[in-house]
Amino acid sequence: MATINDNYLKLKAGYLFPEIARRVNAFAEANSDAKIIKLGIGDVTEPLPEACRTAMIKAVEDMGDRSSFKGYGPEQGYGWLRETIAAHDFQARGCDIDASEIFISDGSKCDTGNILDIFGKNNKIAVTDPVYPVYVDTNVMAGNTGNINEKGEYDGLVYLPITTENKFIAEIPTQKVDLIYLCFPNNPTGATATKEYLKAWVDYALGHGSIILFDAAYEAFITDPSLPHSIYEIEGARDCAIEFRSFSKNAGFTGTRCALTVVPKTLKAKALDASEVELWKLWNRRQSTKFNGVSYIVQRGAEAVYSEAGKAQVNALVSFYLENAKIICEQLTGAGFEVYGGVNAPYIWLKTPNNLSSWDFFDKLLQTVHVVGTPGSGFGAAGEGYFRISAFNSRENVQEAMKRITAK
Amino acid sequence: MATINDNYLKLKAGYLFPEIARRVNAFAEANSDAKIIKLGIGDVTEPLPEACRTAMIKAVEDMGDRSSFKGYGPEQGYGWLRETIAAHDFQARGCDIDASEIFISDGSKCDTGNILDIFGKNNKIAVTDPVYPVYVDTNVMAGNTGNINEKGEYDGLVYLPITTENKFIAEIPTQKVDLIYLCFPNNPTGATATKEYLKAWVDYALGHGSIILFDAAYEAFITDPSLPHSIYEIEGARDCAIEFRSFSKNAGFTGTRCALTVVPKTLKAKALDASEVELWKLWNRRQSTKFNGVSYIVQRGAEAVYSEAGKAQVNALVSFYLENAKIICEQLTGAGFEVYGGVNAPYIWLKTPNNLSSWDFFDKLLQTVHVVGTPGSGFGAAGEGYFRISAFNSRENVQEAMKRITAK
Repeated sequence: MATINDNYLKLKAGYLFPEIARRVNAFAEANSDAKIIKLGIGDVTEPLPEACRTAMIKAVEDMGDRSSFKGYGPEQGYGWLRETIAAHDFQARGCDIDASEIFISDGSKCDTGNILDIFGKNNKIAVTDPVYPVYVDTNVMAGNTGNINEKGEYDGLVYLPITTENKFIAEIPTQKVDLIYLCFPNNPTGATATKEYLKAWVDYALGHGSIILFDAAYEAFITDPSLPHSIYEIEGARDCAIEFRSFSKNAGFTGTRCALTVVPKTLKAKALDASEVELWKLWNRRQSTKFNGVSYIVQRGAEAVYSEAGKAQVNALVSFYLENAKIICEQLTGAGFEVYGGVNAPYIWLKTPNNLSSWDFFDKLLQTVHVVGTPGSGFGAAGEGYFRISAFNSRENVQEAMKRITAK
Repeated sequence: MATINDNYLKLKAGYLFPEIARRVNAFAEANSDAKIIKLGIGDVTEPLPEACRTAMIKAVEDMGDRSSFKGYGPEQGYGWLRETIAAHDFQARGCDIDASEIFISDGSKCDTGNILDIFGKNNKIAVTDPVYPVYVDTNVMAGNTGNINEKGEYDGLVYLPITTENKFIAEIPTQKVDLIYLCFPNNPTGATATKEYLKAWVDYALGHGSIILFDAAYEAFITDPSLPHSIYEIEGARDCAIEFRSFSKNAGFTGTRCALTVVPKTLKAKALDASEVELWKLWNRRQSTKFNGVSYIVQRGAEAVYSEAGKAQVNALVSFYLENAKIICEQLTGAGFEVYGGVNAPYIWLKTPNNLSSWDFFDKLLQTVHVVGTPGSGFGAAGEGYFRISAFNSRENVQEAMKRITAK
């Protein structure tokens, strides 16, 4: 009989967000009158920028005429989009990134999972704890871990705790690790990284031949001008880092789907024969063989993010959600909650009151005030006793949710 | 130093279609006057059906209003699309496939590659020769093969030759294999499978506990009413087959991106402890963790394929390309070429004249008559001496290409 990938059986039951959806649906069915406000999954709620919609309608119309019709595009994305991104997101900030090093994809979730395809099975892998679950689960599925222990940690992974003790900034490890996932502004804690801190990681990676997998999906929420938006703002990062970016949270593309991954051509890792191989070549081959590019229509929408109108509209969206975050922080702090993040980030990370477990607090909020958040323990063992509130919702819903929570 | 996936180094240089693009671009640069006609890569050329465009414009407009805005959709695809597909493509043909067994994705190329994620590393894998290169290359990348030999075959794979001798219908193997890739109507040969032939494969698979990976991307081109469109038209297939479908070739979605994969809930494979595990659960977990669903806009476009207008427009597109195929077959046969396929399929498979190698014939056609096809050897060792011509182009270009080829 054909055999399965047994690594899947090591996974904890249910990916975090489907489990939340299951509990919310069960509650909603049993309480059809309850007006549930969702501040759980980090999903945007406000309309797509007009510039993006106009560009996509034009693109759909292009598809209606044989002379402007688009069949298969380049697997790596259209040159015009890659050039635009290289100029605006990287070169304008002093990052030495070329358009050819940018790969357009349909999501950072996909890319942060798929990137493991090009790495060997014997790498020592470090994640922060708490962490975006996809980093861990995709390593489990790829066979890069052992079994889960009673703390909810997988054998073989190196967990770098981020807690109040270290101000949610993981300490640089003393041991050697080969792949390191970093996410700034951080999901779930909302913490940010200074240039000095990223410099320490780049120095570590260059010193150990490690690769940093840098998730910058929330960079648009940075308002503090001293904070880096890209790891390539740090000297040496071209030789040790892959960066993931997304249009999901800045331009509201969670349902439209477009993202990008940067693999510098100078980045190398080791083959079994000890030769050094360009990771760009491997990722290019992976994408050419297992991917067929992002919809032309969607790529035109993403390009419009960089137009003058698009930039203004994206800025307005980001400011709107940041104002939500500010309201959440103020209200919860005022009500006596211990609150982190929410500045330069759309996530608020709070300590559960009365030492409630994360899931108990989740159930309590859902059942008593009909507000959905995300249990911190869903992001890792060190997230137990914490809770994530997302700023992605309407002003009215955010205010109503805070009124309900703080009234209790 | 971090290590790479060494399996990538086993791959032949360049995936077939990028290699063709490279040669064509080099020729075009050196011969800027040549009017090149591309009948190589199976890429559609005619406008997207109006029904799909209208639906997508409406969907873009939905994104402009917070009440109809769509953020993250279900990773598996929207229920309305899955229900529509289940009813029209499967239940209407007597296939017992439920909407929950249909997973919407951004491409069959992605899915036929990604499906290996859920299988073990010790499966015996069979492919036809010639074959769509993605099946082979993704197995190489996943470490399911050894090195390539001088014939261009990878150690560890079982190759089932399809040639003039067996009328391009692979013989059922006598040895046991665990995973079998089948593609009907076939890419590249244009051959079709009868119900009796598929029944023999289903019986084989049920008898050996094998899984058939059935690629039906070209089913819309079947006009012979006796031929099955889905493997689930064969009794027992629910227990041994995964089917891949695409909107690329019927509705012209190669640049719009939408496809689907059917994983019946009754389908099982074996874990290391010999227990039997539902593949649906594994694929659902894979997609939930490593994928974020297809653009809402694109899913609305795919849904419109099943409207009355959409069906008529898709039928017109398919008929148009089939008429191209007929013209190609007639013209080439008339000129003395040995021609196969091109009926119930958009591909014409021809024997190269004068025993030219596939790539020599490719270069000759490109250089002398500026027509691009696909070398048969690019699809496998047994494809050497054959050549694929695609019917995807305008009538004018097809006629002009045939005029040029037959004039030689």
